[in-house]
Amino acid sequence: MNYLVTGAAGFIGGAVAKWLLANGHRVTTIDNLSTGKKDNLPEGINFIEGNDYDAIVLEKIQNEQFDAIIHIAGQSSGEVSFEDPEYDLKTNTLSTLQLLKIAHKTGCRKFIYTSSMAVYGDAEFELVTEDTVPIPKSFYAVGKLASENYMRIFSSYGIQCIALRLFNVFGMGQNMDNLKQGMASIYLAQAIKTGHIVIKGSSDRFRDFVYIDDVVSAIDLFLNRTGEGFEIYNVSNERKIYVSDIINYIENCLPNITHEYVEGTPGDQHGIYGNSNRLRELGWTPCVTFEEGMSRMIVWGKKTLNADMQAKE
Amino acid sequence: MNYLVTGAAGFIGGAVAKWLLANGHRVTTIDNLSTGKKDNLPEGINFIEGNDYDAIVLEKIQNEQFDAIIHIAGQSSGEVSFEDPEYDLKTNTLSTLQLLKIAHKTGCRKFIYTSSMAVYGDAEFELVTEDTVPIPKSFYAVGKLASENYMRIFSSYGIQCIALRLFNVFGMGQNMDNLKQGMASIYLAQAIKTGHIVIKGSSDRFRDFVYIDDVVSAIDLFLNRTGEGFEIYNVSNERKIYVSDIINYIENCLPNITHEYVEGTPGDQHGIYGNSNRLRELGWTPCVTFEEGMSRMIVWGKKTLNADMQAKE
Repeated sequence: MNYLVTGAAGFIGGAVAKWLLANGHRVTTIDNLSTGKKDNLPEGINFIEGNDYDAIVLEKIQNEQFDAIIHIAGQSSGEVSFEDPEYDLKTNTLSTLQLLKIAHKTGCRKFIYTSSMAVYGDAEFELVTEDTVPIPKSFYAVGKLASENYMRIFSSYGIQCIALRLFNVFGMGQNMDNLKQGMASIYLAQAIKTGHIVIKGSSDRFRDFVYIDDVVSAIDLFLNRTGEGFEIYNVSNERKIYVSDIINYIENCLPNITHEYVEGTPGDQHGIYGNSNRLRELGWTPCVTFEEGMSRMIVWGKKTLNADMQAKE
Repeated sequence: MNYLVTGAAGFIGGAVAKWLLANGHRVTTIDNLSTGKKDNLPEGINFIEGNDYDAIVLEKIQNEQFDAIIHIAGQSSGEVSFEDPEYDLKTNTLSTLQLLKIAHKTGCRKFIYTSSMAVYGDAEFELVTEDTVPIPKSFYAVGKLASENYMRIFSSYGIQCIALRLFNVFGMGQNMDNLKQGMASIYLAQAIKTGHIVIKGSSDRFRDFVYIDDVVSAIDLFLNRTGEGFEIYNVSNERKIYVSDIINYIENCLPNITHEYVEGTPGDQHGIYGNSNRLRELGWTPCVTFEEGMSRMIVWGKKTLNADMQAKE
C-alpha cells in the first residue's frame, strides 16, 4: 500500500511510519522539522520537507495515489499554542483542511487524524466518552476540534474519516529535548539531565497515559478496516495517573532526584481520563501499562541522553 | 463611547454602526468591501479598508481604546464557504483571533461576536438551546464555532465575550444583489427582478427569522450590560417559517410570480429554530414578526431595485 504519514520526523509520526515501512508499505512524509528531527526519519521513507499547509509543498503530492492519509504532524503542545496562536491555526487546522482537499482531489478514500483529548478541556465528569461535549481551553485544542469538524464535512464526499483522540502518548522515541510537550518525557528528561524536576502545576492533576505502540496498533487497525462516514475514537487506558504518581515512580527508579512545584501553564487541563470502549469493541487492546512503559522509557532515556551528553563533550 | 464595528459596509454591520452613530458614539469600521458596499457605510464612520485578519490593517487600530469590539464582518454564506474554505477560515476564524488579540493588547474589555445558528447543523431536535451540541456542517459553521471557542479562552483574560448565535436575519438594507446569502432577500430579489423564484432545496425546509432591528437591539443590550466570562445567546424568534410559507407570502404580495425547485446547496441545514429564553430573560423582546418584516422589505425592495434598474437604463 501507499501511505502519506505527515510528521514522520516526530515521535508519533516516526513510529507509525517505521511500522508501515517494516510491513512493506510505501510511505511518504511531509515534515517541516520545526520540532521533529531529520535523524528520526525511518530509512526508506520518501521525505518532503515543508509545511503541510503550504500549497507549494502540497503540489508535490498532487499526483500521488495514497491508500490513506494519516495526518499526525502539527505543533503538539497546548502551552506552546499560547505563544503563537496563528501558527497553531495553520499547523493544526489549515493543514487538515488542505490535506482533506488533497484526499478529495486525488481520490484517496481514507483519512486518519490524530486528534487529542485536549478537545474535552475540563469536562464536567472526569471520565469522558466520545459523546462528552468538547470545551477546548487551549488554542491547540480549538484547532484540533475544528479539524475534526472539517473531517465530518469531507466524509460526506465518500472519504472514510477517523479522528483518534489520543490521550497522553508516551514511550521510547519521545523528544527528550522538548520540555513543553509530553508530561512523562518532560519529567524524565529533567530527572536524567539535572536530577531535579520542575513541575508546572499541581500534583493532583492527572493524565491517562497510552503507550506509543498501542497508538500505532490503533492506527493499524483502521488501515485494515473499511468503513465510511466520520468516526471519533478515544485512544486511552481508562486509568488516572496522578502527577505525584509519575514523580514517585521516577524518584523510585533513579537515585537522588529532587522536585519542586511552580505555577501552571495556560490552557492546562486539570485531569480527565478516557472511556475507550468504542475502540475496544473493534478489537483494540492496549498492551503496555504505565509502569511497563515508564520502565522501558527510563532505560532508553538514560542511554539516549548519556549518548547525547558524551557526543557534546 | 468608542466602538469598533467590523463589516459596516454590510447589512448587519451597517445597521449596528448606524444605530451607534445616531446615539452619539464614535464608530470605526474595518471592511474589505468583498460583499459590502462603500455606499452602505453610515455617514460619520471612521472607515479602514482592508481585511480584519491582516496584521498590516490591524496596525491601524493598535493605539485605539475601544469600549467594545463588535465583530460582524466575515463571509456569511454557508454555500459560498464550500467554494473557498481557506478564505472562510481567514475571514471567519483568523479574524476573530486577531481581533481578540487586539482587545487583549489594548485593554478593551468587551467583545461581541455575531456567531450563527449554522453552528448547530442538523441538530437532533429542531428546537435548539444554547446547550445543544453543535455539529457544524459547512466550512462557514466550523469557522464560527472555532471563533466562539477562541472567545472562551480570551474571556479568561478579563474580556467579557458574548457570542450571539443569529438565526436568519432579514430586513431592509439586505443585499439584494447577493443570491447566495439570506433566504428572504434571495427569493424576494428574484421575484422583483424577474418574476420567477428559483429555490435551491426542498419546500419543507424552514428557518427562524429575526428582523434586523431586533438584532441591533440585542447588541445594544450587551453594550449596556457589564459582565464577565464567556456567554452564548440564541437570537431567534422561536418560530418555524417554512420555505413554502415564504414563497406563498411573496406570491400573495406581488403579481404574477412563478417559482421552481432545484437541487439544494452543500452544507444547507434542513431546519432548526431557536429557543431564546436566555436572551429574553435579560429583557430582550423581538418586536418585528416575519410578516411585518417581509411587508417592510417588499416595499423597500421594490423601491430599491426599481431605482437600481432605472439607474442602469
